[in-house]
Amino acid sequence: MGDSATPPLSNAEALNLCKEPPEDTKEFIMQQTMYRIKDPRKSIPFYTEVLGMRLLTKLDFPAMKFSLYFLGFENKDDIKNELSSSERVAWTFGRKATIELTHNWGTENDDNYKPHNGNQEPKGFGHIGVMVPDVNKACERFEKLGVNFVKKPNDGKMKGIAFITDPDGYWIEIFNNKSVADIVKNL
Amino acid sequence: MGDSATPPLSNAEALNLCKEPPEDTKEFIMQQTMYRIKDPRKSIPFYTEVLGMRLLTKLDFPAMKFSLYFLGFENKDDIKNELSSSERVAWTFGRKATIELTHNWGTENDDNYKPHNGNQEPKGFGHIGVMVPDVNKACERFEKLGVNFVKKPNDGKMKGIAFITDPDGYWIEIFNNKSVADIVKNL
Repeated sequence: MGDSATPPLSNAEALNLCKEPPEDTKEFIMQQTMYRIKDPRKSIPFYTEVLGMRLLTKLDFPAMKFSLYFLGFENKDDIKNELSSSERVAWTFGRKATIELTHNWGTENDDNYKPHNGNQEPKGFGHIGVMVPDVNKACERFEKLGVNFVKKPNDGKMKGIAFITDPDGYWIEIFNNKSVADIVKNL
Repeated sequence: MGDSATPPLSNAEALNLCKEPPEDTKEFIMQQTMYRIKDPRKSIPFYTEVLGMRLLTKLDFPAMKFSLYFLGFENKDDIKNELSSSERVAWTFGRKATIELTHNWGTENDDNYKPHNGNQEPKGFGHIGVMVPDVNKACERFEKLGVNFVKKPNDGKMKGIAFITDPDGYWIEIFNNKSVADIVKNL
C-alpha cells in the first residue's frame, strides 16, 4: 500500500534482500549482452567507427544458419591472433562487458524483418549504456556522423544524458558517471 | 546470393567493415545493460544469492514512480559508502558490465504484468551471459537452489553451455571461456 510517492522498497529493505555472494560465485564475470541484428554490414561499422568498439570474434554456425559477432571496448594490443581461432575465442569469452550480436542469415534481405528493441510493447530489455568522458562532445560527434537520437543531452529533465539508437533501433544511453551523480543529487 | 551453407559475410569481409576506433572514443566503457523487472523482492535475492552479484546503487524516481537497481560482480571492499550517495553513484556508473534493473512501481502487484524476455516473437534481446570457472559445478548449485533451466549443460548439441532464467524469465547463459573455444572448434 503506502504513499504513491514512496518507493515500494526502502534502501534498508533492499539491502536486507541482498545476500552475501557465495564463495562458489566469486570468479563469475558479466561477460556478454546478446541481441539480434538485421544486417552486420550496418552494425559492424556503427559499433566500431561510431561507438569505438572492436570486433573480437566472429563465429559462424552453418548448420543453424547464423553468425555471432562479439564486440567490445578493448585495446588492439590485447587482442589475440586470428578472428575465429580457438585462442581468440577463449580470450573473447573471458573478457567482461562484450556485446554479442546475433545475425540470422537472410534477415538482411527480408523487408519485413526488424528486431524488437524492447521499448515498445511488449516491453522488456531497455538499452545498453556507454559511459563517456564528455557527453556533449560525444554527442556532437554522433550528430556529425548522422546518428539517430531518441534524446539529446539537453532534452527533457535529465540534462546531460542522451539516448542514441543503433542501426536496428536498439537504444544506447550515453552518460558520464560524475554528471549522473549530479543529476541524481537534484532529483 | 551464394550457397545456403555459406555465411553472408566472410571473416575478411567482416574485418574490412571494421573501422579503427577513433581517438575520441578511447575512454568509452560498456557500463550497463538495462531491462525491466516485475518485483525487486524476487530479483535482488536471485542476482545476489544465486548469481553472486552485489547491489551497487539503488535510485528512486518518485515523480516518475520507478526505481533503478544496479548490480554487478564487484568486491565488497571496492564499494563506496551508502547505497544512494553521490560518491557511490559516480563510482557505480564508472564500473564496467553492470546490470540495471528497472522497477516500475506497482508491477509487482499487477497479475497481468510480465516483462518480455525477447526470445518469443517479437524477438530482439536474447540474454546476458555469465562466465563461470566450472559450468557443471555452477549448474549443480543452481539446481539445488531451484533455478529454472532453459537448457542444462548436457542438453542438445552445445554440451557444456547452459541457459537459466531469472525470476522474470530473462535468459542467462552460463559458460566457461575455454569450454566454449573447444565447442566452437568442433562445429
